[in-house]
Amino acid sequence: MNESEVRQNKITKEWVIYAPARRKRPWDFQKPEQERAQPPPPHDANCPFCPGNDHMLESITMEIKDENDNGLWGARLVPNKYPALTPSDGINRYTKGIYLAMKGFGYHDVVLETPYHNRQIGQMSVQEVERIVDVYHKRYRELMEEKANMMIIIFRNYGRRAGTSLIHPHSQIISTSMVPVYIRWREEMALRYFDEWGRCVYCEILEYEMKDGRRIIYENDHFVAFVPFAAEVPFEILIMPKIHKANFGKTSDNEKSDLALALKSILERLRKKLNDPDYNYIINTSVRYRAEEPQLHWHLLIRPRLTTMAGFEIGSGININPSIPEDDAEFLKND
Amino acid sequence: MNESEVRQNKITKEWVIYAPARRKRPWDFQKPEQERAQPPPPHDANCPFCPGNDHMLESITMEIKDENDNGLWGARLVPNKYPALTPSDGINRYTKGIYLAMKGFGYHDVVLETPYHNRQIGQMSVQEVERIVDVYHKRYRELMEEKANMMIIIFRNYGRRAGTSLIHPHSQIISTSMVPVYIRWREEMALRYFDEWGRCVYCEILEYEMKDGRRIIYENDHFVAFVPFAAEVPFEILIMPKIHKANFGKTSDNEKSDLALALKSILERLRKKLNDPDYNYIINTSVRYRAEEPQLHWHLLIRPRLTTMAGFEIGSGININPSIPEDDAEFLKND
Repeated sequence: MNESEVRQNKITKEWVIYAPARRKRPWDFQKPEQERAQPPPPHDANCPFCPGNDHMLESITMEIKDENDNGLWGARLVPNKYPALTPSDGINRYTKGIYLAMKGFGYHDVVLETPYHNRQIGQMSVQEVERIVDVYHKRYRELMEEKANMMIIIFRNYGRRAGTSLIHPHSQIISTSMVPVYIRWREEMALRYFDEWGRCVYCEILEYEMKDGRRIIYENDHFVAFVPFAAEVPFEILIMPKIHKANFGKTSDNEKSDLALALKSILERLRKKLNDPDYNYIINTSVRYRAEEPQLHWHLLIRPRLTTMAGFEIGSGININPSIPEDDAEFLKND
Repeated sequence: MNESEVRQNKITKEWVIYAPARRKRPWDFQKPEQERAQPPPPHDANCPFCPGNDHMLESITMEIKDENDNGLWGARLVPNKYPALTPSDGINRYTKGIYLAMKGFGYHDVVLETPYHNRQIGQMSVQEVERIVDVYHKRYRELMEEKANMMIIIFRNYGRRAGTSLIHPHSQIISTSMVPVYIRWREEMALRYFDEWGRCVYCEILEYEMKDGRRIIYENDHFVAFVPFAAEVPFEILIMPKIHKANFGKTSDNEKSDLALALKSILERLRKKLNDPDYNYIINTSVRYRAEEPQLHWHLLIRPRLTTMAGFEIGSGININPSIPEDDAEFLKND
């Protein structure tokens, strides 16, 4: 595709502008050498997440053992020291003049993915990544036990442009007592599609993409990874379970290990091919009371941070993507 | 306010989390010295927007004279050399497999705000800023003549974190042939408010804020500037006309000069108090066919780029703001 095109996201109905005049070649997106961090050491005496520094943690909520590794732990869950939300204040709304507000109810956890300060998911064994997925899954199910947790977001910020300056490999889990309009919009669009076409729009897309093949970059028994037709940013990737499930909490053991494998493979490929780009990933999963819905389908979204949202994007909600999804997929397709 | 709070945007119903545990003091947001650009020279021989380099421009669409200044032009409009959209391809939608797409129809202009390479709006005379507002206004009205321009976004990206690397003071205007869901959502919420309460929600907010006073930072005859109750980011500012108008195109000459004055004052205050922060501003105005609606109210939105959107924000659409709007307003209130 060499011409300008505007594409619609089939799930959310959002438009994305593909601007070939602003196109770069894949390698132009690679992080410049001067922006790359120094390779960190395997252990940092000042890092609260490194072994030997447990006194710097307030508490350890969960720990998964590493049987192979001389008594070091495998993965951990700890409370965030600077939480965006805390569970202390209840969920009651109140007015402030003409406005609506509430105390900030929620849990904010940090997942310590490994005891090694410098070991990223792409370089781990599948078994190590499985431990991370296990912590996500266990904590997710725990939080779902508490009614006030209306929404749970599991996410990973990697690199400064993705919003973190912490080196030690970690992800985060936040629960909130409100469902944002952004999520309700996505739900509503999926419901309308279901009511019209009688099926899950995500299943429809998955089937079409697997048949078409051009945007697929990875597949195993339970998961497919592809660049969406209306990717918001260069090298955006969805990792989607083949079996329809609205809720991440319903993931089976077999699926968990295939998710670990997919995640490891994709992240390693991004690191190698794009020179260790900053990125965010997020698990999009149904909110409370929607865990069984036939029109919702959980998935993991990866957003490399290679471009900057500017005034047009802020004002319109339309992203300008200089990169063509089919080209991005082609570039990422092979190891 | 020392405790965590979640606030609802009265216009869009979006929630914003205020996280005091992550709070910084205003001066902690100031751009570090090493991030500040070298002060640019008043003229750059390699800059296509500087006087003497007209041969580097494809064309000049509009020019406003500067009577005082030895024959130099005042402000200009030129086509963007790397347009996100072009008007050549028509507005017809088509399908690609199961997806919807279209050629990229639209205009993409650059407003050259001054012939001086290093002269920012805050440092201009009011008369100079009026010329910029005049170009916005004239071009806006021109684009509105063409039916295919469903939406027009006027915006300014200042600094690398705001998405520009061009030094020469400029803003941009993009028109599109589609209205994004994000805008339709905002319209819909304003309409519901109007149908319930019988008035424009923006007028309601303006009246309340002027009475309350805590978040107001600037006022002149025709405009009020304030930090919104549910500001998405630290030091977000709305500049809002006191007289209800849905559409920026309806702005009167008196209003134009008061807008210029407000813009100059606010941007200069941001520069002085936050050490020349990167920012975007956007004129939010009604789309085609909605120019007379009683529930819409155009305004200018300023978003300083002091924080980074991370995984939680991408996944939920909820921003975490470490800064309290009342504190931000207090800090910006006086020159």
